[in-house]
Amino acid sequence: MKSFITYSEDCHFPIQNLPYGIFSSTDNPNPRGGVAIGELVLDLTLLESEGLLPSNYFSQSNLNLFMSAGKEIWSSVRRQIQELLDENNSSLKDNSELRERAFYCQSEVSMHLPAQIGDYTDFYSSRQHATNVGTMFRDPNNALLPNWLHLPVGYHGRASSVVISGTPVYRPNGQTLPMGEENPVFGPCRLMDFELEMGCFIGPGNELGEPISTENAGDHLFGLVLVNDWSARDIQKWEYVPLGPFGAKNLATSISPWVIPFEALEAFRIDDPIQENPTPLPYLQCEKNWTFDMNLEVKIKSPTMTEPETISESNYKYMYWNLAQQLAHHTITGCNMNPGDMFASGTISGEEAGSYGSMLELAWKGTKPIQLSNGEVRKFIQDGDNIIMTGYAQGDGYRVGFGNVSGKILPAKKQ
Amino acid sequence: MKSFITYSEDCHFPIQNLPYGIFSSTDNPNPRGGVAIGELVLDLTLLESEGLLPSNYFSQSNLNLFMSAGKEIWSSVRRQIQELLDENNSSLKDNSELRERAFYCQSEVSMHLPAQIGDYTDFYSSRQHATNVGTMFRDPNNALLPNWLHLPVGYHGRASSVVISGTPVYRPNGQTLPMGEENPVFGPCRLMDFELEMGCFIGPGNELGEPISTENAGDHLFGLVLVNDWSARDIQKWEYVPLGPFGAKNLATSISPWVIPFEALEAFRIDDPIQENPTPLPYLQCEKNWTFDMNLEVKIKSPTMTEPETISESNYKYMYWNLAQQLAHHTITGCNMNPGDMFASGTISGEEAGSYGSMLELAWKGTKPIQLSNGEVRKFIQDGDNIIMTGYAQGDGYRVGFGNVSGKILPAKKQ
Repeated sequence: MKSFITYSEDCHFPIQNLPYGIFSSTDNPNPRGGVAIGELVLDLTLLESEGLLPSNYFSQSNLNLFMSAGKEIWSSVRRQIQELLDENNSSLKDNSELRERAFYCQSEVSMHLPAQIGDYTDFYSSRQHATNVGTMFRDPNNALLPNWLHLPVGYHGRASSVVISGTPVYRPNGQTLPMGEENPVFGPCRLMDFELEMGCFIGPGNELGEPISTENAGDHLFGLVLVNDWSARDIQKWEYVPLGPFGAKNLATSISPWVIPFEALEAFRIDDPIQENPTPLPYLQCEKNWTFDMNLEVKIKSPTMTEPETISESNYKYMYWNLAQQLAHHTITGCNMNPGDMFASGTISGEEAGSYGSMLELAWKGTKPIQLSNGEVRKFIQDGDNIIMTGYAQGDGYRVGFGNVSGKILPAKKQ
Repeated sequence: MKSFITYSEDCHFPIQNLPYGIFSSTDNPNPRGGVAIGELVLDLTLLESEGLLPSNYFSQSNLNLFMSAGKEIWSSVRRQIQELLDENNSSLKDNSELRERAFYCQSEVSMHLPAQIGDYTDFYSSRQHATNVGTMFRDPNNALLPNWLHLPVGYHGRASSVVISGTPVYRPNGQTLPMGEENPVFGPCRLMDFELEMGCFIGPGNELGEPISTENAGDHLFGLVLVNDWSARDIQKWEYVPLGPFGAKNLATSISPWVIPFEALEAFRIDDPIQENPTPLPYLQCEKNWTFDMNLEVKIKSPTMTEPETISESNYKYMYWNLAQQLAHHTITGCNMNPGDMFASGTISGEEAGSYGSMLELAWKGTKPIQLSNGEVRKFIQDGDNIIMTGYAQGDGYRVGFGNVSGKILPAKKQ
């Protein structure tokens, strides 16, 4: 499969990918649906209005309607877009007037949140990450809490503060408890961190009281983005018992703009991790694999750097609980999903120290500061640091990637 | 102040109240805005289309647009509705043709969620409730956790499963850990509970990164409803460490349909509780009182009862952290609010055993079963039980009330 649009072998957006996003352009400030191809964006509303794409999903400021349409529609729309971009198809390729209007440079458009996110849930599904946290803060010999291997632990996140890649993030102010003190103090977070996660958008939902089985999960899962779940570790530590993280997380959650549909990821589906000792309860057992081999990377660009520097290399395959299990567990008590809801995976840490998905783990609670090549060191994120996450699956001569999610930490505002 | 619509002294919806809701009727199935007056609903879209109410907020299936309009608009719309309902105003009173079309019996309309709730936050702000829980599950001598008196503990709830009063709720299935066992089992929740709470709808929001001070909170708080935060205690106990309640709460949260605006509650504003030892940090200090004297009541109607029976009498005044403090804390790290977001108070328990706001506390973890007058006993909620919460503030010769929030527990579905 080859497109008439040209791009390099390491481009994240070949014709095998075709992720969906919401963009606006200087000539048309209305946010609308597009797909990324090479270094361009194809305006899907134009294809619709020209009758080349017989759908009516993309003249919206979000993809919720398309997400709600379901697998058969997703598949047929994808096939039609793929055909229009194919080097052997002339309808778009040879219509230079239409091509002129249909394509934008990615570098020249503004990207927006791909969905109106009704509810955002954050899981905690990487075993190595949970083990690292348990080792640092509790007991290395009993790092995992008793429930962790029995259910995909998760919590309800804050949907309003999910922001698109590139949005700067203020270092939060908040309450923290200084070591050894009894009374908290107020001020800027001192232990600002990122969390490398993947996010999944939900397609068609379920009715309240009607759980979704692992077997049917695929009918409800639309596609993936990268997620940086910003975390104020000192604020989190003081606030989170007993009801979980709150202000430490709701300051912002950044996501990458292009949603990769699962059809584009089929080639990278690999075996799920073995779950024995304990075997999950039947409602969490899963016949189909929902693990994907996708390289993930975290880079930092401090104000003095000219190029970003890689500080972690992880992989989406380092997940213990998969998306089908997360969805089955989330709905088992009857919770209803809506199109555009988002699941984040939780921090994805591999087994090696260089593959950990947060500063907390990489610098091991500040005890092993990260040495950067320009001589700087980091225990946590400093003001002006730009954190850039990227990820892709490597095919034979092509990559299916996300582009990236980035965000710069600005100094805390005076209160 | 007196309306030409007649009602009794103990009616919850006198002209002093005028709560807003979304209703539909058999002659017009479009959900739209109305106010409750006596036993009637006044159709606000009709007043708008007739030019009697110069606004354009109520021909919507939710009140979000009106909530976003802000205090001055709320005040002016309220004054105009109050004038139209006044016994001395003839424009509606003496127009029998219009009266015929403008009013519906509350018993004959369907009520809908008053807002599209973007995010729902549940606090934990009653000191007696937190003390009771800490006493039962931890240490009576150290019942409150170290952070509790320093900040309004809260967590992000699930917005999608907030339902309107009257919606039946299935007993959830889920994982629980039997006493003394190492492995969880799957099945229907055995410890089904209610939580008596109040809910506050947010009006105009704030930008990400721009906290709202306690002083400005009143510009952002629209009005109150009753909340039953259904809780599956056995599921909660197994799942909630370390990230907080999840499936035990997202099965359903019921709210009353009529939102009482704060202007209707001014007469019932009373002194906030004294907060010394410790004094909160400056950002949580509050000059204006945000405590209200409102009686709250929980009734149960089991399948064999002909009338509901009261099992708890509490009061909204039993709150340690008030709404302005909750809002200031929620936004202090930069979290943004949107119109229609909802805060719930957390279970409101008074000091006496008969004023506790959950079955868990009333029956003290099952050790003091509740004796009902028909001979039945309850430790937790049984299938077929209808839980009805009601509440009102007592004025001089009138009441400002919520009506009620009810919900019946249906048997768990077979999995």
